[in-house]
Amino acid sequence: MKIKLTVTLKNGVLDPQGKAIQQTLNGMGFSNVEEVRQGKYFEVEVNEKNEDKAKSKVEEMCKKLLANLVIEDFKIL
Amino acid sequence: MKIKLTVTLKNGVLDPQGKAIQQTLNGMGFSNVEEVRQGKYFEVEVNEKNEDKAKSKVEEMCKKLLANLVIEDFKIL
Repeated sequence: MKIKLTVTLKNGVLDPQGKAIQQTLNGMGFSNVEEVRQGKYFEVEVNEKNEDKAKSKVEEMCKKLLANLVIEDFKIL
Repeated sequence: MKIKLTVTLKNGVLDPQGKAIQQTLNGMGFSNVEEVRQGKYFEVEVNEKNEDKAKSKVEEMCKKLLANLVIEDFKIL
């Protein structure tokens, strides 16, 4: 089954890429954009029919590879 | 209000980054990972209280800047 997840910078961690996007949007006329934060999104196809087991595997992958827990949070959707 | 969205490669568009992650996960012992697709995730803070209006603004931003509609799809969450 396919598990979807996001990896985002923790609150308080500077996000220069998001800031650049925000400034670009402002410059394009979207003046009411106050903040943009960019993260990563993954779809992981796991050969496992049990949803709980699949999610727990993906959680392990996040901790070991997909997210840097020092500066990032992950969320399994 | 904060609008969340994902931008993903269209089906059929090669995703070498996702492939590399999949192979790495397989090599780490996660042998039941069959496919990984990576996309982008954005949180956009818009100064607009009406949810429908905020989402329609963000949709316009996706079409004009955040997504390359030739190879990518976007989804407002």
